Amino acid sequence: MSRAAQLRPVSELASLPVAIDAMGGDRAPQAIIEGARAAQDEGIDVVLVGVPELLGDTLGLEVVACSEVIAMDDDPAQSIRTKKDSSLVIAAELVRDGRACAMVSAGNTGATMGAALLRMGRLPKVIRPCIGAPIPRFDAPPAVLADAGANAECTPQMLLQFAQMAEAYVTARYGTARPSVGLLSIGEEATKGTPMVKETHQLLADSGLQFTGNVEGRDLIPSPVDVIVTDGFTGNVALKTLEGSLKFIMGVLGQVIGTDEETRAAGLTLLGHLMPYADKLNPDTTGGAMLLGLGGVCIISHGSSSATAITNATRVGRELAMAGAVEAIAAAVQTS
Amino acid sequence: MSRAAQLRPVSELASLPVAIDAMGGDRAPQAIIEGARAAQDEGIDVVLVGVPELLGDTLGLEVVACSEVIAMDDDPAQSIRTKKDSSLVIAAELVRDGRACAMVSAGNTGATMGAALLRMGRLPKVIRPCIGAPIPRFDAPPAVLADAGANAECTPQMLLQFAQMAEAYVTARYGTARPSVGLLSIGEEATKGTPMVKETHQLLADSGLQFTGNVEGRDLIPSPVDVIVTDGFTGNVALKTLEGSLKFIMGVLGQVIGTDEETRAAGLTLLGHLMPYADKLNPDTTGGAMLLGLGGVCIISHGSSSATAITNATRVGRELAMAGAVEAIAAAVQTS
Repeated sequence: MSRAAQLRPVSELASLPVAIDAMGGDRAPQAIIEGARAAQDEGIDVVLVGVPELLGDTLGLEVVACSEVIAMDDDPAQSIRTKKDSSLVIAAELVRDGRACAMVSAGNTGATMGAALLRMGRLPKVIRPCIGAPIPRFDAPPAVLADAGANAECTPQMLLQFAQMAEAYVTARYGTARPSVGLLSIGEEATKGTPMVKETHQLLADSGLQFTGNVEGRDLIPSPVDVIVTDGFTGNVALKTLEGSLKFIMGVLGQVIGTDEETRAAGLTLLGHLMPYADKLNPDTTGGAMLLGLGGVCIISHGSSSATAITNATRVGRELAMAGAVEAIAAAVQTS
Repeated sequence: MSRAAQLRPVSELASLPVAIDAMGGDRAPQAIIEGARAAQDEGIDVVLVGVPELLGDTLGLEVVACSEVIAMDDDPAQSIRTKKDSSLVIAAELVRDGRACAMVSAGNTGATMGAALLRMGRLPKVIRPCIGAPIPRFDAPPAVLADAGANAECTPQMLLQFAQMAEAYVTARYGTARPSVGLLSIGEEATKGTPMVKETHQLLADSGLQFTGNVEGRDLIPSPVDVIVTDGFTGNVALKTLEGSLKFIMGVLGQVIGTDEETRAAGLTLLGHLMPYADKLNPDTTGGAMLLGLGGVCIISHGSSSATAITNATRVGRELAMAGAVEAIAAAVQTS
């Protein structure tokens, strides 16, 4: 069982650093340290959590030492039980204990969720926390997909809360006044989908949220709504399908451009114009996903995070803490 | 309730035309008639089903007249009950009555499924028919996703049958000797996913199929397996996410290429090299999806089908009938 969350006021968070899991991610610890340093150079207080003898040069950075590492392929539930002195668990404890305003990890997602849930606790009334993942848009802030994979099995009541939490999150993160909410289904009509989805449709229609109805897989990018609600199984499959499709087509483009001298020159001509789009689609720039429903800010950066990804995730973690995101999410669920 | 299917031997199907719903699809009837004519020019016997006064010029084509049309946005269940003399229902009856070897429609997908199920009947032991949709690959025949949207709610036993039927279908359609089968989930491990997915994993592992384990959304394209099994809700969301992502990135490319004279010239240089890829990704070329588990061949072509799409779907319908696809699918389910 997770503990009850202890909410800290923004005034108390303001003086605290962002705790960064130095051991998590495919490019840890080098890329993480580099990203933390860049964040600090921007004026964001950071504290690295890691095993000192594995970290290398951390000159100028505050380090909280731990002795264990949860690997990317460790069993999440087991590893957080047995590796209590791991960087992930300690980072979550720093937030719990009022020693950090937020935590950032590019490590084992399941273990991050577990450690954050166990240490930070769940907000009152929240049935289950979920992952709010950004999906890039060119002409608007990213849309947020919730749940992007925390809960394979969901009830309509859980999905209603995902919508409420993601709505509050979008406002805290992007300043959107009254975010629109869509329900992922297999047709626009309220009668489409599983019984669970149909019941959720009704709950959302009655919720007071800016619910615009169902959206479909083809609406994921670019999304016509600010929040896309779904269960964690469908959300995970859809998000990975989106990522895989973009990667696939980029691979085709790369292959075609590499054909000969002429195509390479043509590719170079287009590259300058493509870059602004590619930048927006690059997961390193979106600043990571947030776990919604916990007693603190926990940012999950993707496994292959670069230093830039970590810097962006750290900035987002700090901004969300300062924006009172956790209090806003707690309030959104309270009113239901 | 659907009737029991009456299986017809290939020898009996050989002399029969393919029934083409002339009224179904965004570009009906013109594109449908044009596609039917091209199929006939290839030597494939066809029969158009449509409302004569709406068809225009059908010179040289056999037409079975009907008086009603099921619109793209008609309620599927209600329309097949009330519009018994619609082109969709009559096309399905031609297959049932041994007057056509297969049917093709680009019309209302739900109504096509309903009409085909009610008129052709379900194969023995089949719990629910499903949609087997092709997903392009460059270095191999398309992978088949089943269920791509017929059944929002599924049991593990249904998914096992989808796998068996899709395996037989892939062999009949592409000649693949022993198709590999993957289960769509949210992680590679057998322990990932909903209880339904985990139970299905076990059934597939024990099935005698060439089951290689779970695949994820990022594996949809290009697929490492010949058959991807999932429930119709997830399958529909994933397929539409894939289509939407590809369309999105093509739109970005088009916009970038249209920037100025220089980018247009560069785009032109790349176009010739991109075309073979684009052709393979174009749904018009894949020949449509097949309804698996019915007493006859029913090919669903996408709503925006061009004449080429209809010609390809007609050819595939004929080939599947000649390959004994329905008998093979019936046998695959019988052995379970």
